[in-house]
Amino acid sequence: MNLTGRHLIGNRESASSASSFSPANPSLGTALEPCYFEATEVEIDDAVTLAVAAFDPFRRLIAEARADFLDAIANETLALGDELLQRASAETGHPLPRCASERDRAVLHTRQFAELIREGSWVDARIDLPDPTRQPLPKPDVRSLMQPVGPVAIFGASNFPIAISVLGADTMSAFAAGCPVIIKAHPGHPGTCELAARAILRAAASTRMPEGVFSLLHGKSNEVGTRLVSHPGITAAAFTGSLGGGRALFTVANSRPVPIPFYAEMGSVNPVFVLPGALRAGASRIAEGFVAALTAGVGQFCTNPGLVLGLESEEWADFSELAREKVTAFKPATMLHAGIHGAYQSGISDLMTRESVELLGHSAIDADPAKCEAAAYLFQTTQQGLLGDPTLFNELFGPVSTLVSCGAPSDMIAIAEKLEGSLSATIHGTENDLAEYRELVTVLQRKAGRLIFNGYPVGIEVCHSMHHGGPYPATTHSHFTSIGTRAVSRFVRPVCYQDWPDTMLPMELQNANPRGIMRLLNGERARDELAF
Amino acid sequence: MNLTGRHLIGNRESASSASSFSPANPSLGTALEPCYFEATEVEIDDAVTLAVAAFDPFRRLIAEARADFLDAIANETLALGDELLQRASAETGHPLPRCASERDRAVLHTRQFAELIREGSWVDARIDLPDPTRQPLPKPDVRSLMQPVGPVAIFGASNFPIAISVLGADTMSAFAAGCPVIIKAHPGHPGTCELAARAILRAAASTRMPEGVFSLLHGKSNEVGTRLVSHPGITAAAFTGSLGGGRALFTVANSRPVPIPFYAEMGSVNPVFVLPGALRAGASRIAEGFVAALTAGVGQFCTNPGLVLGLESEEWADFSELAREKVTAFKPATMLHAGIHGAYQSGISDLMTRESVELLGHSAIDADPAKCEAAAYLFQTTQQGLLGDPTLFNELFGPVSTLVSCGAPSDMIAIAEKLEGSLSATIHGTENDLAEYRELVTVLQRKAGRLIFNGYPVGIEVCHSMHHGGPYPATTHSHFTSIGTRAVSRFVRPVCYQDWPDTMLPMELQNANPRGIMRLLNGERARDELAF
Repeated sequence: MNLTGRHLIGNRESASSASSFSPANPSLGTALEPCYFEATEVEIDDAVTLAVAAFDPFRRLIAEARADFLDAIANETLALGDELLQRASAETGHPLPRCASERDRAVLHTRQFAELIREGSWVDARIDLPDPTRQPLPKPDVRSLMQPVGPVAIFGASNFPIAISVLGADTMSAFAAGCPVIIKAHPGHPGTCELAARAILRAAASTRMPEGVFSLLHGKSNEVGTRLVSHPGITAAAFTGSLGGGRALFTVANSRPVPIPFYAEMGSVNPVFVLPGALRAGASRIAEGFVAALTAGVGQFCTNPGLVLGLESEEWADFSELAREKVTAFKPATMLHAGIHGAYQSGISDLMTRESVELLGHSAIDADPAKCEAAAYLFQTTQQGLLGDPTLFNELFGPVSTLVSCGAPSDMIAIAEKLEGSLSATIHGTENDLAEYRELVTVLQRKAGRLIFNGYPVGIEVCHSMHHGGPYPATTHSHFTSIGTRAVSRFVRPVCYQDWPDTMLPMELQNANPRGIMRLLNGERARDELAF
Repeated sequence: MNLTGRHLIGNRESASSASSFSPANPSLGTALEPCYFEATEVEIDDAVTLAVAAFDPFRRLIAEARADFLDAIANETLALGDELLQRASAETGHPLPRCASERDRAVLHTRQFAELIREGSWVDARIDLPDPTRQPLPKPDVRSLMQPVGPVAIFGASNFPIAISVLGADTMSAFAAGCPVIIKAHPGHPGTCELAARAILRAAASTRMPEGVFSLLHGKSNEVGTRLVSHPGITAAAFTGSLGGGRALFTVANSRPVPIPFYAEMGSVNPVFVLPGALRAGASRIAEGFVAALTAGVGQFCTNPGLVLGLESEEWADFSELAREKVTAFKPATMLHAGIHGAYQSGISDLMTRESVELLGHSAIDADPAKCEAAAYLFQTTQQGLLGDPTLFNELFGPVSTLVSCGAPSDMIAIAEKLEGSLSATIHGTENDLAEYRELVTVLQRKAGRLIFNGYPVGIEVCHSMHHGGPYPATTHSHFTSIGTRAVSRFVRPVCYQDWPDTMLPMELQNANPRGIMRLLNGERARDELAF
């Protein structure tokens, strides 16, 4: 397929700006063809205008039609074949098998959202039946369900060019909800975005979706994103990326004359607590799993474990040594782009100069900066060192972690209390450990969105019960997730119908329950139809 | 009971500020005893510190214990007897029967939240079972449920001193979720707040809730609210009141180093569309119902109908005349306080000078400004008049409404498109009308949180399916409601447990399903227990 570098605004292609940029191949340090253009104010407005016009026809389609659209996207994604994987690999430095697993993940969540809306109960339909004889006032007939909010702006992540970008769960959950989507393509992988966007547009055409249900805009400047989030036609936005970028756009969204929700997932430090029983049972296995998680994707996961805490002991010393060995063996690999690579290098240099931490080990092989390569690093400190230097609680994006030796269980709890909000917190232990450290669990429940036992936070399962979110700065709104089927709830709001005629109600609220969904009927969950 | 004017900070009473204010009896224009004090920074910090300490013990109680607390609040509220009603009446000008109906409503929603958490399924428990044999990677055991966010700050409404204040659904839904509550008492009715707060504290004591689960702070300045919302220990806030006040605190909440959700319900214009069939079938009945809704509570409802639209016709002229007669007959009555009364008077004066509207009628009897009395007013305009003067789309709090004559159905739709977000939209019509005006319904679904057929928006049913929310400026986040059992979702977030030992899971996620709740099990809703 020939990439064009143009914006895909509904069924139209456009590139009217004089300002352009070229993506780079980070492992070669070379520019990739074609060049991509900064979206102009007119192009942004055109995309939003089309999305606004598409909203009513799109949301009024029966759920089955939207599900078919999602399934068609999954099929068109697979039909892109190796071209998608090769382009993603060239633009991000990810090896091809990683790109293939991202693609499979995107297909999986796309089909999962199709299944969710086919089944239909997710709309949280509620019916409270009337009572015309109630005193002092008759009780009305009240029914409600979730309906879509309107056009959504989406900012994909740099680190998952396929699974958390154009083809990510943000896009698919917005479509599932019934919302048109405008993507601000990530400038690190615009070609991957273009391929994916063309797949979505083919799926939209073959399933006869209204024009404007999807558009793709490019831009490297902050201006494009700011303008898009500021546009009055946009009703919600989702973002995966850095704390700085997420917070800036969050402020834009809240400062609009009509504020909109801005759902940002901004990563976190993802602490790991290794309890004594676990160390006794198998320090080697845990160290191996930890370093594998730390270095997966060259440490560029938002659930990358940045702090590991254990009690001072012989076993902890063994664990530290084992982890050091594994880190030493990590072969430096290419990071996503020069910007992330530079931030990582300067973060490491900064840690080297801090008295609060000590370098424990690093990759034995030197990293090649021309290839944007990162070595893995392991630092160590004590609870005093950590508590005395709050910057150590901040995430440094890349394959680096700090081991923290604690003097007593109460130190672990004191540190847990100082943690910022996190996507995940992990405990390695026996069941006895967990019972003994109940207080630690209580604290972590307040700090994290996901608690993992004897596992690792990376590799997030795509399922109904997954929560990928957490207290700030993990996300801007801890009630919502960006992965798993609950993600759809970001793009809907309840609409309530009072004394509304049955035939004019949305299908999900009609007496006969034609979709056969689970509903809350006078407070009881049931699939019953109502006879009148 | 002797009112003290002091802050109730957990079990302690405090009034350390030199700055105080006295509430007024708006119908007499006299001050009421005692005086109330501005909460100091130390008092605010004390209340939040206690709430933070109370959070873990409170949320770890079994649901039944929190339900008992709520039932005890309902009982203590009833035990306040006439004293509560008399004080509320004195502070707000509401007649006693209105205060009694508010009290009954508060008791109803308090018991409803107790019932909700006793039943337990509201936590949205989800379980996806593991598959250790899955390729290429084993599938983990993933479970999640809603858990409380932490201490909540609540700002009650001036217009419902009992039902949407200390004893409102904001407080009860936060308790139901498992969150400690700090109330910033409304300075218009601090005595009512003190009585209600003491009832809650008695209920907390009798059911042995941890100290700090509830505190009451007074203040007339903006500073107290700003400081409370800015406090790092507060994790969410709910507000009912004016657009100006709500937006200001929303900005404070979003500008914190750690932003928190600020759920503001700020009222709206609540348009009413009277379709031709309805006018033919009974213009008189509709006019009567409309003016009753318009003047209920002296027009001081957030769902007060501010715009009424009809097609130019003989029947519409009849309707306008009937409505004018009813408005003329409205006997002026006391508004909540001098501030609201002044804003209403100046809003009316402003409307009088506008060329875009014409005065159609007003109460025949003069209002007595010394008693903060408001007369009812009815204005009229055309679609050109309305579309030419955007200020007419704004809510004016009080018993005033504008009738809008439209030339054609398409004019109604054009006006609907210009509406800001609204809590409600009402259609009067036959079922044929509704089918014919399907396009109007489509637009209103985007504009309002609740659609009412042949009824009136005031008098909001307390039930599971109620939605009292809507696009901005009706609320700051249209996904959430402040009335009905869905209100609890504002104060919870998902917490996910991966490969967690069964005995250490929250009860709602354990295999045996000891609470017998409905769960989402591998995507299917079931009350099953899991056998392993």
